[in-house]
Amino acid sequence: MLTIANTQFSSRLITGTGKFASGQSMQAALSASGTELVTLALKRLDLVQNKDDILAPLQELGVRLLPNTSGAKTAEEAVFAARLAREALGTNWLKLEIHPDQRYLLPDPIETLKAAEQLVKEGFIVLPYCGADPVLCMRLQEVGCAAVMPLGAPIGSNRGLLSKDFLDIIVEQSQVSVIVDAGIGAPSHAAQAMEMGVDAVLVNTAIAVSPNPVAMGRAFKQAVSAGRTAFEAGLGSVQKNAEASSPLTGFLEHL
Amino acid sequence: MLTIANTQFSSRLITGTGKFASGQSMQAALSASGTELVTLALKRLDLVQNKDDILAPLQELGVRLLPNTSGAKTAEEAVFAARLAREALGTNWLKLEIHPDQRYLLPDPIETLKAAEQLVKEGFIVLPYCGADPVLCMRLQEVGCAAVMPLGAPIGSNRGLLSKDFLDIIVEQSQVSVIVDAGIGAPSHAAQAMEMGVDAVLVNTAIAVSPNPVAMGRAFKQAVSAGRTAFEAGLGSVQKNAEASSPLTGFLEHL
Amino acid sequence: MLTIANTQFSSRLITGTGKFASGQSMQAALSASGTELVTLALKRLDLVQNKDDILAPLQELGVRLLPNTSGAKTAEEAVFAARLAREALGTNWLKLEIHPDQRYLLPDPIETLKAAEQLVKEGFIVLPYCGADPVLCMRLQEVGCAAVMPLGAPIGSNRGLLSKDFLDIIVEQSQVSVIVDAGIGAPSHAAQAMEMGVDAVLVNTAIAVSPNPVAMGRAFKQAVSAGRTAFEAGLGSVQKNAEASSPLTGFLEHL
Amino acid sequence: MLTIANTQFSSRLITGTGKFASGQSMQAALSASGTELVTLALKRLDLVQNKDDILAPLQELGVRLLPNTSGAKTAEEAVFAARLAREALGTNWLKLEIHPDQRYLLPDPIETLKAAEQLVKEGFIVLPYCGADPVLCMRLQEVGCAAVMPLGAPIGSNRGLLSKDFLDIIVEQSQVSVIVDAGIGAPSHAAQAMEMGVDAVLVNTAIAVSPNPVAMGRAFKQAVSAGRTAFEAGLGSVQKNAEASSPLTGFLEHL
Repeated sequence: MLTIANTQFSSRLITGTGKFASGQSMQAALSASGTELVTLALKRLDLVQNKDDILAPLQELGVRLLPNTSGAKTAEEAVFAARLAREALGTNWLKLEIHPDQRYLLPDPIETLKAAEQLVKEGFIVLPYCGADPVLCMRLQEVGCAAVMPLGAPIGSNRGLLSKDFLDIIVEQSQVSVIVDAGIGAPSHAAQAMEMGVDAVLVNTAIAVSPNPVAMGRAFKQAVSAGRTAFEAGLGSVQKNAEASSPLTGFLEHL
Repeated sequence: MLTIANTQFSSRLITGTGKFASGQSMQAALSASGTELVTLALKRLDLVQNKDDILAPLQELGVRLLPNTSGAKTAEEAVFAARLAREALGTNWLKLEIHPDQRYLLPDPIETLKAAEQLVKEGFIVLPYCGADPVLCMRLQEVGCAAVMPLGAPIGSNRGLLSKDFLDIIVEQSQVSVIVDAGIGAPSHAAQAMEMGVDAVLVNTAIAVSPNPVAMGRAFKQAVSAGRTAFEAGLGSVQKNAEASSPLTGFLEHL
Repeated sequence: MLTIANTQFSSRLITGTGKFASGQSMQAALSASGTELVTLALKRLDLVQNKDDILAPLQELGVRLLPNTSGAKTAEEAVFAARLAREALGTNWLKLEIHPDQRYLLPDPIETLKAAEQLVKEGFIVLPYCGADPVLCMRLQEVGCAAVMPLGAPIGSNRGLLSKDFLDIIVEQSQVSVIVDAGIGAPSHAAQAMEMGVDAVLVNTAIAVSPNPVAMGRAFKQAVSAGRTAFEAGLGSVQKNAEASSPLTGFLEHL
Repeated sequence: MLTIANTQFSSRLITGTGKFASGQSMQAALSASGTELVTLALKRLDLVQNKDDILAPLQELGVRLLPNTSGAKTAEEAVFAARLAREALGTNWLKLEIHPDQRYLLPDPIETLKAAEQLVKEGFIVLPYCGADPVLCMRLQEVGCAAVMPLGAPIGSNRGLLSKDFLDIIVEQSQVSVIVDAGIGAPSHAAQAMEMGVDAVLVNTAIAVSPNPVAMGRAFKQAVSAGRTAFEAGLGSVQKNAEASSPLTGFLEHL
């Protein structure tokens, strides 16, 4: 079981709500994925008209909502967005995202730590998106974040675990849950992350933009489960030499 | 469905029988893996005493047997072993393995092609283990092999798809099934191979030597399914830049 | 020419002074490397006894000194060390290093930015060692750092450019010099960094611990030059398909 | 010194003659590269009219010629081409190339071994282009080849040492010179190959198609020298943890 802030989840696959063709398509894909924790941007909520193509399908699914601060470029903007989200959605869970750069959407370590500290004080359950920086992750943990969400690669790039070597260090050092966020573009990436011992992965683009989001949701569900099972069962060590899996000698003499 | 020599298989995970702690452990792990095609070395069969710790569990599972010629160092030895296997097991299916080198167990391209040609003439269904050599794979196909089994990395090394770039070419060119054999040490490797469009993978060591072979068998089953599903659904392209999965602009203005 | 803070250097290879067997060995290796900028830890300077196995050989070489704050765990410690170094060595150039973690020696982004801001105000030429974090590098540039020194891999690990994909973004975005620091364990790593367009590399361990530091110093000199020359001349693009370098068709018909 | 067939070469950089803009450009680039062994396709030689834009510049450079059989698709064609080349150029040195596939130009292991055996019998010094297949390389050595030339990646692809793990095994096992041929697209690739202990590299496309072939020729010269020097001096081992190159503790207490 994945545990974040004393809440347990059967699924280690966290998903997003962006880029789906429709609310219906999103609902079907997320259902197939087995996800129990779903992030959504504040902007997606049509608060004014109270008609929502995103929120209703999620509520039907019964998943926990994880509003995010995507679009915020400073700690101040993120804190403001977080308060709005809490009010609008009635949850103090928050995915903290601050990325001043529009091209690669990479997170700002300084503003993220500053906002995290403030939001923890205000009673939020803070899950910050951050670079795969082991020292920063320790500091985010120290100010009270409920998990850390280091990136594998830029958001939406589908490039996999470019930051693998640093993620290994984060997993080794972290006492809160480690969730790989961004860059996971294929089930094999998700399985690899889980095999390394991360606690969960967040996948959005790879499911949402697939020609068949339902099938892809199911594929990620299986891959996350496969990777976690392998991590728990114990993987073999990597060898330079071969090791025979079939007996090699004397088969002719034997007969 | 995986089709080899007009025979259909629901599972795309082919397994081996080496290195398991016991026949019972093997049976449980293979059952969990969902495999329907299992390779075994001739030597494993206790033909003299007709007491067999390998054969009986496999027959109970109802899987198709794929005897191999592991231990053969020349075409001549492999052909001899193949005939014995056909007689002993009553099947003309054969995994052809010829590796003169004892350290890395890498296959001999010359002897393998020579033996394949002879065995096809003698009515065998030949699945040759070979290097990830696109030209060799075409030639094995031309002499009538039912599939090709290029390696990802040395047998038992758990090193994954070291030969990935060459496997891509083989998948692109091949008209028979492509089965990645050797080197697959983790579910993520198997998923990656399937995402590339290979038809099946063969896994032995990674399951057999796991502290929990049953769990690992199940993990590989899921990973192969996940990878195949993703291949069929269509993976997103890899981007250099980020692509926002959450809306980026104006969330403050919106409210 | 490499330009940092209006100072020009013919060599793009920056070196360190740690781990050498002796001051003589260091001097010979650095001389062979052609380096013109050399970092040294404050601790190495025997200020009390004014007998120095490090400083004298460097002064004989005529290189510019780049004192570093290695050992500092906070901005405060780093600033204190920087002031001492300036007084002791009569230079306002400074390699800013703050790494609270003793195992991987990874830099602290928060403290590093804080110290950088202060030291720039005090008139230092600040070159900060930092993670390969594009947003952090922009912020370090904004507070007035003369260059940024993102890491390739943990110090002394010899693992090469693990952070390559992020270094590419830093090079693309940076307006100050980008110097890859830490992780460069072989001349090929240095050449690769230079081919990517970084302005300089810092190498210490790989030269100092080689059985033949003089030869290794020379090898890095050549590799840095090779990589820079290739960057300036323009590398070919990477192709999926082959492209014939010899004519392929009709050679028999020709005759 | 590189030794092939009892002939010594100061340079470990072998080059080709294809794709240059002109004979003059080729001559200048090869001169800058320091190469002493240059391969050329039979077709390039205008045997009929005895006017040659390729041969004259090479003869002026004083390099040894290494005619190749590029374009041959079978052993028979290659043997025929080899005999013509020997007669036309007065050398029994031969780069054996047989690639039936026009897209990736990958070598045929079966035909290459067959032709090699025949050509050795006819007194040729045979250097075969082949896949990075350790068993094939052993067999080519056994039939008397003077060196083996395994590929790093498809010809002209500039993709580097995709086959690195298999090249390592070839270097470990081979008693004749190992020359990495094809795929080397940047000086860092050449340096990496030399650091691994290969005896020489062949570079053509990367120099010939550069906007500045002379500079690129010089860059490869330096990179090959750097890699070889590092191999001979001894590289440090790769570490997971960091190792401090500057002293870490107590710098404040010291003062």
